Amino acid sequence: MRLLIKITLSLFLTVFFFACKKESSEQNTTNSSSPDKKEFATLNLMPVPAALKRTEGSYRLTKTFTLNVKDGAEPRLYNAANTFLRRLDGRTGLFFLQGVISKEIPQTVENSVLTISARRTGKIALYEDESYALTVTAEKITLDAVTDIGALRGLETLLQLLDSDENGYYFPCVEIKDQPRFPWRGLMIDASRHFMPIDVLKRNIDAMAAMKMNVLHFHLCDNQGWRIESKVYPKLTQLASDGQYYTQIQIKEIIQYAADHGIRVMPEFDVPGHATALLVAYPELGSAPGPYVMERNAGIFDPVLDPTNEQTYVFLDKLFAEMAALFPDEYFHIGGDENNGVHWKSNPKIQAFMQKNDMKTTMDLQTYFNNRILKTIKKQNKKMMGWEEILTETISKDAIIHSWLGKESLFKAASKGYQTLLSNGYYIDLMLPASEHYKADPLPPFEEWSEKEKKYKLTPEQEKLILGGEATMWAEIVTPMTVDSRIWPRTAAIAERLWSPGAVKDEDDMYRRLEVVSFRLDELGLTHIKNKDVILRNLANGGNIHALRILADVIEPYKVYTRNNGGLMYKSYSPFTLMADATSSDAKGARVFRKQVERYVASPTAEDKEEMKKSLAQWKDNHTAFLKLMKGSPVLKQLEKLSSNVSDVSSIGLEAIEKSSSDESWYNEKTAFIKAVKDSSVAKQHSDKTFEDGRCEIKILDAIQTLVDNTNKDLSNKRITTEKEAEEKKRKEKESAGEH
Amino acid sequence: MRLLIKITLSLFLTVFFFACKKESSEQNTTNSSSPDKKEFATLNLMPVPAALKRTEGSYRLTKTFTLNVKDGAEPRLYNAANTFLRRLDGRTGLFFLQGVISKEIPQTVENSVLTISARRTGKIALYEDESYALTVTAEKITLDAVTDIGALRGLETLLQLLDSDENGYYFPCVEIKDQPRFPWRGLMIDASRHFMPIDVLKRNIDAMAAMKMNVLHFHLCDNQGWRIESKVYPKLTQLASDGQYYTQIQIKEIIQYAADHGIRVMPEFDVPGHATALLVAYPELGSAPGPYVMERNAGIFDPVLDPTNEQTYVFLDKLFAEMAALFPDEYFHIGGDENNGVHWKSNPKIQAFMQKNDMKTTMDLQTYFNNRILKTIKKQNKKMMGWEEILTETISKDAIIHSWLGKESLFKAASKGYQTLLSNGYYIDLMLPASEHYKADPLPPFEEWSEKEKKYKLTPEQEKLILGGEATMWAEIVTPMTVDSRIWPRTAAIAERLWSPGAVKDEDDMYRRLEVVSFRLDELGLTHIKNKDVILRNLANGGNIHALRILADVIEPYKVYTRNNGGLMYKSYSPFTLMADATSSDAKGARVFRKQVERYVASPTAEDKEEMKKSLAQWKDNHTAFLKLMKGSPVLKQLEKLSSNVSDVSSIGLEAIEKSSSDESWYNEKTAFIKAVKDSSVAKQHSDKTFEDGRCEIKILDAIQTLVDNTNKDLSNKRITTEKEAEEKKRKEKESAGEH
Repeated sequence: MRLLIKITLSLFLTVFFFACKKESSEQNTTNSSSPDKKEFATLNLMPVPAALKRTEGSYRLTKTFTLNVKDGAEPRLYNAANTFLRRLDGRTGLFFLQGVISKEIPQTVENSVLTISARRTGKIALYEDESYALTVTAEKITLDAVTDIGALRGLETLLQLLDSDENGYYFPCVEIKDQPRFPWRGLMIDASRHFMPIDVLKRNIDAMAAMKMNVLHFHLCDNQGWRIESKVYPKLTQLASDGQYYTQIQIKEIIQYAADHGIRVMPEFDVPGHATALLVAYPELGSAPGPYVMERNAGIFDPVLDPTNEQTYVFLDKLFAEMAALFPDEYFHIGGDENNGVHWKSNPKIQAFMQKNDMKTTMDLQTYFNNRILKTIKKQNKKMMGWEEILTETISKDAIIHSWLGKESLFKAASKGYQTLLSNGYYIDLMLPASEHYKADPLPPFEEWSEKEKKYKLTPEQEKLILGGEATMWAEIVTPMTVDSRIWPRTAAIAERLWSPGAVKDEDDMYRRLEVVSFRLDELGLTHIKNKDVILRNLANGGNIHALRILADVIEPYKVYTRNNGGLMYKSYSPFTLMADATSSDAKGARVFRKQVERYVASPTAEDKEEMKKSLAQWKDNHTAFLKLMKGSPVLKQLEKLSSNVSDVSSIGLEAIEKSSSDESWYNEKTAFIKAVKDSSVAKQHSDKTFEDGRCEIKILDAIQTLVDNTNKDLSNKRITTEKEAEEKKRKEKESAGEH
Repeated sequence: MRLLIKITLSLFLTVFFFACKKESSEQNTTNSSSPDKKEFATLNLMPVPAALKRTEGSYRLTKTFTLNVKDGAEPRLYNAANTFLRRLDGRTGLFFLQGVISKEIPQTVENSVLTISARRTGKIALYEDESYALTVTAEKITLDAVTDIGALRGLETLLQLLDSDENGYYFPCVEIKDQPRFPWRGLMIDASRHFMPIDVLKRNIDAMAAMKMNVLHFHLCDNQGWRIESKVYPKLTQLASDGQYYTQIQIKEIIQYAADHGIRVMPEFDVPGHATALLVAYPELGSAPGPYVMERNAGIFDPVLDPTNEQTYVFLDKLFAEMAALFPDEYFHIGGDENNGVHWKSNPKIQAFMQKNDMKTTMDLQTYFNNRILKTIKKQNKKMMGWEEILTETISKDAIIHSWLGKESLFKAASKGYQTLLSNGYYIDLMLPASEHYKADPLPPFEEWSEKEKKYKLTPEQEKLILGGEATMWAEIVTPMTVDSRIWPRTAAIAERLWSPGAVKDEDDMYRRLEVVSFRLDELGLTHIKNKDVILRNLANGGNIHALRILADVIEPYKVYTRNNGGLMYKSYSPFTLMADATSSDAKGARVFRKQVERYVASPTAEDKEEMKKSLAQWKDNHTAFLKLMKGSPVLKQLEKLSSNVSDVSSIGLEAIEKSSSDESWYNEKTAFIKAVKDSSVAKQHSDKTFEDGRCEIKILDAIQTLVDNTNKDLSNKRITTEKEAEEKKRKEKESAGEH
């Protein structure tokens, strides 16, 4: 994770966020080239398949349902078929007669309902065929794929097709022909900032497979911990892991588990920066004298390998040889980001080396380092990937560029002939809504590119160098308890962006399906829903969590990098058991309410009015229950103001709904109150001291202001105009001061 | 698990259950030798310490809280101290300034608040010292122990002492001197019938440590699966595990994890019966010709090793040598139970062997087998343990007897000089209430022994042969998803029985503390609370689970062996995702209601009346919401009648509460309705076909009948007398027919 640069990024993203917000209503109009929207409105598929045709009728499920895997398949497909049967049976409670099937004890089922066939065993490698064809008729279901990996993808689709009515369960009749839009659909998990035990990885691999993702990018070491056993350099885990690391056997177990789900595992060893842990173990490789101590905060730090010390290359050569042998994947990520150069600049020997070799900037020195590392990686028959900082003029064309600061680098890399991958827009640790990530397309129609991007117009061949994208789960303020709720369900929206046709982009329908996905991932064993209640029970000190659930339904943790302002509020060992950890993005109560308000002010209905009043009354009354609970749980005190603010603004909302018009005094008083709540929240977001509000913000303030505005159009127009002017003025002042 | 014998046992237990019920009010009177009840009423300790003195004042917690581990301790104690700090910080949200401490980087904290000292490193072995002394004053906390294991136990006590008021968090001032009553306090986990992944074991080890338990008895193989890698006999897992087993490295990981928590791991390899999996892999060792197929049902099965084949001993000799080297524990469990002898009787070669060696029964042959196995085990420097069937006249005195069919065998074994352990009364798979297990004492005062038991009056030396007890988590109808809810919180009551003084036996106070323990185990990562909601969400097909929560609050799964009547209703691959899996013993709504009714009919208060009415009204109205939910989820249909019955009997309860008296027609009608509901439930419990009611029973029927009885004393006395007479008549008929 990358902090200093990101403080600028944070501003950028905030602007981006509001810019997108304004556009959202236009983006919601269905693109004419998208699959028939009517079809998808009745199905819960995610990601949406490339081609789907709904046909008449349905296949009705009973306990006599059977499946058959055609001969020649590997155990992986049998396992998947067993899992499919058990998940289907678990949902329907039908007690299927068919038991365990396996390659060792082949059970050819005569006239099975579902026939699964794969022409060959898929390789766990980039560009492997993942396509499948799935046909459901009233009598039979067939799933055909080129590879068994395609068959795995198709089984997930079939499970998602399950539907029911009062007569029971059925699969609707369909013809699906499906394949991914991009060959690289990844999730990066940071196991350094907080160690993620194997069961966290396994269940997330399950979820990735359910969402047809195919790369686990494993961020294994950083300033805060070295998490993988090295037999060559054992001090790495002895001195720099707090005892929390994966043995090589466990790594193999994870790789095998991922392969069984058609998922690649790419390791990342971040060099030359992000190296504190490495240097705690081997300080002699550092650019400063040392000793180094384990980092417990978040941020960008000075410790960096010495690229002028030949021992550094000897070390990395041996280490990477060991690690390359462990990870079968063709790609090997070396990080290469966020080296601030401080220790290089302050080391006379390094300065002398730069001068002697005519290197003007530390970036030049890093490129020298990168190109030497590239040789090491190539010796292991691997392709070297790095974050976009490695993209300098002299970096070898064999490097793969991982774009994270902005999409420009993606197009630039492709235009220069590099393979490249997008993570900008997929930073799920920023706690932005799913819709924001959903908008980020690695390859949108050219007319949607920004002016800066357009200079890199790509040929069809160059377009193919854009491999796809990766959601990045940085874990500075994320623990095994909360990590699933940071990844899911939002990452499903990213998975759809990378698998489905680009024209599939109806946000409302995405949210509708995301809710089903979320519940199904809970069933699959993910903890994003259930651990929320665990934290609320902790906060309630064993009391009834009803009031906390209601509060949590309208608040969200601070966004981008504000929750852990400056990187120093939370240490790796801080408690992540509080309200910001129980809540997540896309708080449902707030999201639904905002939609209702939007509809209501445009065209009021009695139904929306009733629903809004019900919600507002509940939020208003909730503070009394909250105060009662707080008596038995001192940790809730930090949320007292937040809860009372939710109650007070809800009262305003209730009043506003009942008013057909309002006078200036009422309007100004209520507007001022809402603004005060908002301003105070913004001030706390910019503080690196206070934990009041539990590092959470209220997500119904704008909607309630909209209701207030609705009572007096003149005053609201005036207010909006004034605010816009003030913003514009501020922007201009900033521009003239050289900021951007 | 032991089924045929247990069908008799089931009847026995049912009688036992009702017998105990009647006694409970007497048992609740506090024994004068128990620790001061008033003290414990203000604390949430479980198990209750041997001696506790409450002193004036409290230690107030702030973020400056620090601890120090005195020099010389092993990493285990540092890890426990870190975990203690993080758990305390997680609960209080104080953001302690103290970070990670470790043996490698000793951080002597000057004037730390808590000082932890252990005189030596404890051995992970029976009889190791687990005592500790804990003193909390307003300024300092000291924890002193002979061994670091004692210190681990004390840290758990200190965490349980945490309390709060409106001023914040504190530890009350206390002086505690604590040690266990019995040296063996175990939990058996059956990983054969359903495989239990490592994370299941780890979190249950966490919970055991929190409850001061010290033995994990690992039931690793049975008819339904061989779950541990053998390098000598690889076919065991290749052919008889469905790919679900622990590698030897994983076994070592579990043993290490347990040792870090002061917990022994004892393996069980069940021979000569329970051997289907072994014989699937190596049929040549069987008593019948084979081939054998994997068992998917529950029950007692015929496959059994051939004790007349010398190759059987060669095989077990090598296998046990391999396994004994893997498990450092001194004890080695060989099962030895439930061999029905069918294959021995039908094999002429075995019959000839028996005749030649003057063996009259298959039990004689099994003792011959056991004594030979004992030599094998002794060669590995282990002590052989077996279920009580191994206790025959000629079994060596070196064997340890594991009592499960009845407590008589425990006293008999001790009186004959065998070490012995109690599991009878601790069969948590039977789904009985915690209070039943709480009553089972391995060594109650002699005057409480049954007449049969009294013939084995023990000397003080013989009493010491009673090592303690073990809760047994048989897993035929238990999966990784549900296993925690079967073990916890009830096993905490067993843990208290085995640790605390025998005089600690107030059931109401146990239940009060059990609720706190349950919530704290949820915080620790156990899934008994949170997975319940996952299953309800599955049942609700993503709908609002409120109605299902209300229903689940008054129902429980069928008890003893009735849920899986005959062992054939559920296969190992059946769906365990339905109502009986979401519910557990001690349904809280029902339990609280029963208490209210009991109090109310004895001495009515307006408060109890209001509370009962509120509950009854909620249960009555719930059926409408249930029906609405059912429309979207066909799997709920099997619960429709159950839900409507809950609603109907709740209506009766409401009517009864409002009546000061009732006429015969009303009384008879309502009584008949309740009886019909009950009879129909009993009929379903004795059926091995129907899944109506989801294999659950309503737990408020008797209480509602009590309310009905309360409206007409004459009729109710008559009814009760008639029922008693009928029961007595039935009992006599049975006796004269030779049943017991």
